[in-house]
Amino acid sequence: MATPIQENLVGSNNAYATNFTQGDLALPPAKKYAVVTCMDARIDPAAAFGINLGDAHVIRNAGAVASDALRSLVISQQLLGTTEILLVKHTGCGMLTFEETDAANMVRQNLGDEGIKAIADGFAGKFLPFPDVEAAVKSDVEWLKQNKAIPEGTKISGWVYEVETGKVKSVQ
Amino acid sequence: MATPIQENLVGSNNAYATNFTQGDLALPPAKKYAVVTCMDARIDPAAAFGINLGDAHVIRNAGAVASDALRSLVISQQLLGTTEILLVKHTGCGMLTFEETDAANMVRQNLGDEGIKAIADGFAGKFLPFPDVEAAVKSDVEWLKQNKAIPEGTKISGWVYEVETGKVKSVQ
Repeated sequence: MATPIQENLVGSNNAYATNFTQGDLALPPAKKYAVVTCMDARIDPAAAFGINLGDAHVIRNAGAVASDALRSLVISQQLLGTTEILLVKHTGCGMLTFEETDAANMVRQNLGDEGIKAIADGFAGKFLPFPDVEAAVKSDVEWLKQNKAIPEGTKISGWVYEVETGKVKSVQ
Repeated sequence: MATPIQENLVGSNNAYATNFTQGDLALPPAKKYAVVTCMDARIDPAAAFGINLGDAHVIRNAGAVASDALRSLVISQQLLGTTEILLVKHTGCGMLTFEETDAANMVRQNLGDEGIKAIADGFAGKFLPFPDVEAAVKSDVEWLKQNKAIPEGTKISGWVYEVETGKVKSVQ
């Protein structure tokens, strides 16, 4: 039986598809850029960052962590021709609220040793929180600029989105 | 000097922020679910899947690969209380168009041995393409259901979004 969340997906999508007119967009992003941002529920990248359908890859993970996005970025660049990256973290991020040990302790408490083994196998048990959002933007941008899997000449910029105001600010 | 892409971000965001009225949303997703979907430029998850601001985490990577989303999913569940996952891959996905060796060869050609080393260090050199989108949805849903880092009882469903029609179809 469908859950309410699944029913919402199907119902909302029916309305979307009825009015859908952009079925002929090309696979490679038309504006040749990729956005890396957080999975946070309060961010709507298309609306807040002005991304029209078909224009850009949008990569989202917990914290907009650059290293976690590297596979996607290399595919975006090497196979689909993007040449610019916008990295956007945000105020009030969940990643500012805990440390590695807190997360590991919660997994151990809720999921036991099997859970600990699963996160070790899945992502080396590294949740990658950070204590300062602007500093994290700067270090992630720098990490991407130094990374040899990202071509020299790639334009990379860093930003902080304010979930309280809807404003984005340039950091680097 | 700002690039045209950066100018678009700033200009579009100014307009968005001017009309922004949802600055008081809570950090945990109100509807307690997470969506895993592809970074593909032709997908607007909020519009196509009926996700209102504040309702759900949205995780996006190349191919909507579940294993690549595991860190984010565990944070979503253990630290921010989500209990349901929608996994949505799509027709025409770039991940259907190449094999591991193709991607590695392209990196070697464009970025040399240093690039190969960087992808090995970054993500074990695994791009994780798949040849059949419905089969990949099913195997990813199964992988999540078996994974000990995902609590038993998590509702997990799999879907394919058609970029040609805007329609989403239930797979599993």
